[in-house]
Amino acid sequence: MPAPTSRARLMGELSAEFAGTMILILFGCGAVAQVIAGGALTHGALGGHDSIAWGWGLGVVMGIYVAARLSGAHLNPAVTLALAAFKGFPWYKVLPYSLAQTAGAFVAALLVRWNYTEVLAKADPHHTDKTQIVFSTLPGNGVLPISQLGALRDQIIGTAVLVLLIFAVTDLLNTPPQANLAPFIIGLIVVVIGMGWGTDAGYAINPARDLGPRLASFLTGYGGAWRDQYGDLYFWVPIVGPLIGGLVGALLYRLLISRYLPVTEQEPGQVPAPDE
Amino acid sequence: MPAPTSRARLMGELSAEFAGTMILILFGCGAVAQVIAGGALTHGALGGHDSIAWGWGLGVVMGIYVAARLSGAHLNPAVTLALAAFKGFPWYKVLPYSLAQTAGAFVAALLVRWNYTEVLAKADPHHTDKTQIVFSTLPGNGVLPISQLGALRDQIIGTAVLVLLIFAVTDLLNTPPQANLAPFIIGLIVVVIGMGWGTDAGYAINPARDLGPRLASFLTGYGGAWRDQYGDLYFWVPIVGPLIGGLVGALLYRLLISRYLPVTEQEPGQVPAPDE
Amino acid sequence: MPAPTSRARLMGELSAEFAGTMILILFGCGAVAQVIAGGALTHGALGGHDSIAWGWGLGVVMGIYVAARLSGAHLNPAVTLALAAFKGFPWYKVLPYSLAQTAGAFVAALLVRWNYTEVLAKADPHHTDKTQIVFSTLPGNGVLPISQLGALRDQIIGTAVLVLLIFAVTDLLNTPPQANLAPFIIGLIVVVIGMGWGTDAGYAINPARDLGPRLASFLTGYGGAWRDQYGDLYFWVPIVGPLIGGLVGALLYRLLISRYLPVTEQEPGQVPAPDE
Amino acid sequence: MPAPTSRARLMGELSAEFAGTMILILFGCGAVAQVIAGGALTHGALGGHDSIAWGWGLGVVMGIYVAARLSGAHLNPAVTLALAAFKGFPWYKVLPYSLAQTAGAFVAALLVRWNYTEVLAKADPHHTDKTQIVFSTLPGNGVLPISQLGALRDQIIGTAVLVLLIFAVTDLLNTPPQANLAPFIIGLIVVVIGMGWGTDAGYAINPARDLGPRLASFLTGYGGAWRDQYGDLYFWVPIVGPLIGGLVGALLYRLLISRYLPVTEQEPGQVPAPDE
Repeated sequence: MPAPTSRARLMGELSAEFAGTMILILFGCGAVAQVIAGGALTHGALGGHDSIAWGWGLGVVMGIYVAARLSGAHLNPAVTLALAAFKGFPWYKVLPYSLAQTAGAFVAALLVRWNYTEVLAKADPHHTDKTQIVFSTLPGNGVLPISQLGALRDQIIGTAVLVLLIFAVTDLLNTPPQANLAPFIIGLIVVVIGMGWGTDAGYAINPARDLGPRLASFLTGYGGAWRDQYGDLYFWVPIVGPLIGGLVGALLYRLLISRYLPVTEQEPGQVPAPDE
Repeated sequence: MPAPTSRARLMGELSAEFAGTMILILFGCGAVAQVIAGGALTHGALGGHDSIAWGWGLGVVMGIYVAARLSGAHLNPAVTLALAAFKGFPWYKVLPYSLAQTAGAFVAALLVRWNYTEVLAKADPHHTDKTQIVFSTLPGNGVLPISQLGALRDQIIGTAVLVLLIFAVTDLLNTPPQANLAPFIIGLIVVVIGMGWGTDAGYAINPARDLGPRLASFLTGYGGAWRDQYGDLYFWVPIVGPLIGGLVGALLYRLLISRYLPVTEQEPGQVPAPDE
Repeated sequence: MPAPTSRARLMGELSAEFAGTMILILFGCGAVAQVIAGGALTHGALGGHDSIAWGWGLGVVMGIYVAARLSGAHLNPAVTLALAAFKGFPWYKVLPYSLAQTAGAFVAALLVRWNYTEVLAKADPHHTDKTQIVFSTLPGNGVLPISQLGALRDQIIGTAVLVLLIFAVTDLLNTPPQANLAPFIIGLIVVVIGMGWGTDAGYAINPARDLGPRLASFLTGYGGAWRDQYGDLYFWVPIVGPLIGGLVGALLYRLLISRYLPVTEQEPGQVPAPDE
Repeated sequence: MPAPTSRARLMGELSAEFAGTMILILFGCGAVAQVIAGGALTHGALGGHDSIAWGWGLGVVMGIYVAARLSGAHLNPAVTLALAAFKGFPWYKVLPYSLAQTAGAFVAALLVRWNYTEVLAKADPHHTDKTQIVFSTLPGNGVLPISQLGALRDQIIGTAVLVLLIFAVTDLLNTPPQANLAPFIIGLIVVVIGMGWGTDAGYAINPARDLGPRLASFLTGYGGAWRDQYGDLYFWVPIVGPLIGGLVGALLYRLLISRYLPVTEQEPGQVPAPDE
């Protein structure tokens, strides 16, 4: 059987990025809808902050399992950009990947919007910031006194950590999880970012994750989608911050770790023993 | 030693589907009983929404480990149907498998009913919708304003996602978990569905999981088991929705992912690297 | 180097059972102490029901990693008895193993008692049932209307499920977790038992886990340790129930699963695929 | 290509210890900041005790994946000291490793301090013990009646358990997790220590984790950083306790387990079966 042409291969890659990011957002935004909108109507009986963190993290796990073989499962333009800048990922694919990711996030958010129509309408009839947060992020989650600059700082740091860790757990010269379990560990990165770095800006750490659902909410009744609780245009922060942060994280991984790594892989079956 | 006859093999398969689904329901319905009925008597000291999500998910993990070698551990008629339609699973086994699954769920629900007799009697003496939900699902979990059509929509989407992901994490041409850890990852699919897609219809996503316990509750004092909180017959929704949804999910996996996959398996030991 | 003598080998086995069960109880009873006693003084700021479930389950994970190579890490007389009855474990070792397990649990409970002295004294100055539950179990966790017979029923079912699942995930003819990850999955069995089967009798499901700490608490100021909240001798229930339940579970695994299993192991690297 | 010189190799090791411990603290202290400071302003909507336990534990997972290949990922002077005393880790590296770990913790704490500036200022304008606990530990978490001696006892026991378990899950002669998943299991050790041994002294169990952030908080407005809630110098307890405890745990592992272990590794692919 002949190898697929480059064009056919790119189609598969974009389809995988679309599907994987769609899965991620179906779970991530779904969990926020359940906790915030469903929770407002049931005295919190449908989960809490930790369900949201696990929802995003396990959404990442599942999105990666869907897309990994075909596209490498970036699911995030900040990851794609960092891979292009530091790992030889072809620059000409950066924009198509990013668009496919954003489109997947957009479609998933429409499905969440549709499935939660009744609950969103009852919990927040005027579709305000209270449930805007189901779809896209706000400084201080819409309630804490964080400025746009503070949110930008947070997004740069958070995405730097994300990309540094993705580089670490997928680096064959380091000690990456084997047995195809890296997707699980990468999901845990997002769980723990949600637990420790979700205060200032709701841990978008992914331009597609934020922009796609923001657009979906805007087109379905959320007139204030592009602005923060102070009335300022905000949508650019969770785009620019993650793109910068991803590059910073990749650079830090190179400076602190990868330039010191041996050039051969670890022996198979070897446990990372602390005494070696 | 001669290979088992086809009939003996089917017996083993049905026994495994029975046992695996029984384990799933012992934990799933057990967790709801503990949180809803036990919780009502202890000011919530016996767990919360997240325990229920983990209870169902880890119940899936354990049910699969019990049944996997013998039957493939479908544990769900919607999965069995999708495998017959898309993966060559023999059509003549679809009904026997589904019956064995439902029987396992029925027996497990009777055990939960028995073990929680005192607590259910004290928390809900008239065996109303309040604890009906221990056994079978209701639109909006019995409290949110979801119509039957809304619940059907939710069950189709939720089961589509479930089956799409099961197909992804068991596809040898994709990047499936190795070392016999797929059961763990499949359980996490159900955990995260519980966290993000449990608002509108209580995430049955499995006709056997809903029908078996519904029948068990009906036979043991829950006269309203077949109807929703509006008094309408409801039991068909978590049967029809998942059966349709499973087919949709399998189709989407084919369209978005599997038709693009290479025809050879990944090299052993290879990490799903984002830059490939 | 000569093989160790049988006597030396038994010493190692008993030492491992002692150490593994000690680790289990340090975490299990430690978590209950933190949540119940520490929580009473901090408005619940030190964890809740789910921390206790994870505490016991992860305690099992760690106890098994300590003991697995030397003794097989039973950590539970009900498991030891079931292995003797169904898997050829030598009968003459059943009592020594059980005593080593109970001794490990006893020592661990003394350490918990010591470390939580101040907190237990402040939260429950008279050392009543309120904190007795840190060490040993009570029907209905001391507050729900469960009789001794109800608690016995619960302990039989709960331990049957535990042992059925342990047999499943360690059966080389089934699909056991590989890469030495069975201890993790076995810990998850205990997590989910805590979430779904902890209402009626506090899920001892292990005679050593209950008797050792009960004795430790009795010797350090808990005069009512042997009785339940009704004043009746209760300590025998979490001993007899688990021993019976373990045998029931092992029998069920044989009847429902293992007699149908192929006699050769699964091919290496094979994913438990639902369509096979 | 020539092997790196010993000096170049040490540089890589120290860089890895710095980076790994930085990651650990970014998540650990980040989670406490989110729950304690963010939570005080949002009625607990940003997580609870369990998020903190998972934050520290998953922080350990990620820190180890960063550093494992280069340095063995000790990330903790108590681990480094125990490895030197019991496993032949070179004594001359103990101090450099410890300093690199403390420096990583210090830098990470400064980043947390910076990112949470606004939230800390609003939740605790005078930078008191209330948010001191974001950075460093206090006896009884600043609110329970634990003396310095009680906290020292707790830190010795907690770190003994930590190191005993690290030795167990990295011992090739025992049954260590394979497929490079030991980092995940080691993180779970810290999760469960947080759930069962976090009452008396906030589970520092790591001198670098406590001293680095304590210094960072002192330099950025926390004048009382070195003292406990009674006004006594306290910073030495989470340094001395863990260093002693680590040695105790390593000794216990040798006495109870490793001296009985076979001298050859387990056969590959073998499941730790309870009946062997």
